[in-house]
Amino acid sequence: MREFDFINKYLRPIAGGNSHNLGDDCAFFNGYCITKDVLVADVHFFKNDAPFNLARKSLRVNLSDLASSGAKPFGFMLGLALPNGTDESWLAEFAKGLASDIKEYNFQLLGGDTVYHDGALTISVTAIGVAQQPVTRKGAMPGDNIFVSGAVGNGFLGLRDKKNGIASGRYVKKYELPEPRLELGLKLPEIATAAIDISDGLLADLGHICKESNVGAHIYSDLIPLADKSAGLMELITGGDDYELLFTSRLEKVEACHNIGKITAHAGLRLDDAEVEAKGYEHGKR
Amino acid sequence: MREFDFINKYLRPIAGGNSHNLGDDCAFFNGYCITKDVLVADVHFFKNDAPFNLARKSLRVNLSDLASSGAKPFGFMLGLALPNGTDESWLAEFAKGLASDIKEYNFQLLGGDTVYHDGALTISVTAIGVAQQPVTRKGAMPGDNIFVSGAVGNGFLGLRDKKNGIASGRYVKKYELPEPRLELGLKLPEIATAAIDISDGLLADLGHICKESNVGAHIYSDLIPLADKSAGLMELITGGDDYELLFTSRLEKVEACHNIGKITAHAGLRLDDAEVEAKGYEHGKR
Repeated sequence: MREFDFINKYLRPIAGGNSHNLGDDCAFFNGYCITKDVLVADVHFFKNDAPFNLARKSLRVNLSDLASSGAKPFGFMLGLALPNGTDESWLAEFAKGLASDIKEYNFQLLGGDTVYHDGALTISVTAIGVAQQPVTRKGAMPGDNIFVSGAVGNGFLGLRDKKNGIASGRYVKKYELPEPRLELGLKLPEIATAAIDISDGLLADLGHICKESNVGAHIYSDLIPLADKSAGLMELITGGDDYELLFTSRLEKVEACHNIGKITAHAGLRLDDAEVEAKGYEHGKR
Repeated sequence: MREFDFINKYLRPIAGGNSHNLGDDCAFFNGYCITKDVLVADVHFFKNDAPFNLARKSLRVNLSDLASSGAKPFGFMLGLALPNGTDESWLAEFAKGLASDIKEYNFQLLGGDTVYHDGALTISVTAIGVAQQPVTRKGAMPGDNIFVSGAVGNGFLGLRDKKNGIASGRYVKKYELPEPRLELGLKLPEIATAAIDISDGLLADLGHICKESNVGAHIYSDLIPLADKSAGLMELITGGDDYELLFTSRLEKVEACHNIGKITAHAGLRLDDAEVEAKGYEHGKR
């Protein structure tokens, strides 16, 4: 049984009133926004990734969810299941990475739990933001324009390069250290009807907005800002591990963002002249 | 490097203002209290434990931390790293267990993340409570009485029995399904100067209160309500996985609780006529 099937069949029916029926990356309560990501070595990152950047990535994937909700970072709980025998130098570098992004994003470490085990490194961060006007996946209306905040496909290209043994380079850098769009996120309550980050891939995440908003979408390949035009379009828009924001708006133009199409009353996703599936990246073994 | 050393050396220096310097199981912000526990199969529970009770235990260990902070359950984020190929029947039972305790404790599932991997089941719950007057480990004063809310050593005895192949029985039941002292917890803001649950073991957790409050303690073995008087005293008070509350108070008597000694100005723990170390249970392989 796959992750989404488990959530839909077993967890949605028991989800609470503040959970938006689990239809969002974040839950909202009393001006706060909360989100959680679990990252496992050899599934979501490479076992030998440098701990300094890995710590930062584990915060940033959550900060990106806060950004997509229109929230300002407040604090996080850190859950670590460390492999037995983890070097002290690794731990010191990991803590340095946390400290660096705590400072960069005015975030704070609130607490957490650290345990040792025989298995792979598992990092579970729960992030809290302040969101007076939450933005969710619900609210996109037919006629809304669809915007993406930057290049699509860096995650796919970075993962491809890493698998090919390329240790650095621009795509690898973006894959290892995404930049959450927090500044734009804070503007979303004023301009967006719905929003999400594209960590599952542009098509899959547009599909999430459409599903939660009960609408469809029509996007145009020549309007999508691809990270590398020589790479395959479908790989780039289904690759995942991208941390740009995707949002819908009544506005025609939004500064520094790309208008890639329109929300439709008709359900389903259209890419140029063809119906497409809202498929995204499924994490397999790295 | 052990868990506590990592936390003290690397995480405390970078902890935020709301974290109490990581000197508590919970952090507090704006009337809320937040805590997190990470449980790994074959470290914190047995791989073959029934999923219905395991789901409940994973909530209850967190609910116990909320109780010790004087908080009322609000909601939780669920992080699951599931072994590839986990049976659907297992998932269904696990969700049933969650639903059962959601109802019993008026708790709610807010959100979370589920991933699959090659390794052992890892459950990471972040729990939020409402705490208008937080109770922490800090605040115990010389002369305060020390109370424990119930029998000490059920965790040790349950684990011992399970290791000996005993599948049920009263200790195993208590080990597998602790009862968080939420009702008492709600009274703590009125009566307690400091509080904690004894999930690390009575001695270790009394040591935590003393350390954070800059005091010592003198307790008496014949006042401690042992779960089984025929078992070894030291095993019972250092065994861990107990979920009674330990708290200090100016009161001489607290209904249904046991006065086991006094807080002292002199640092260190005294048991009867001897100094003892504040040692507790360290999770090894099950």
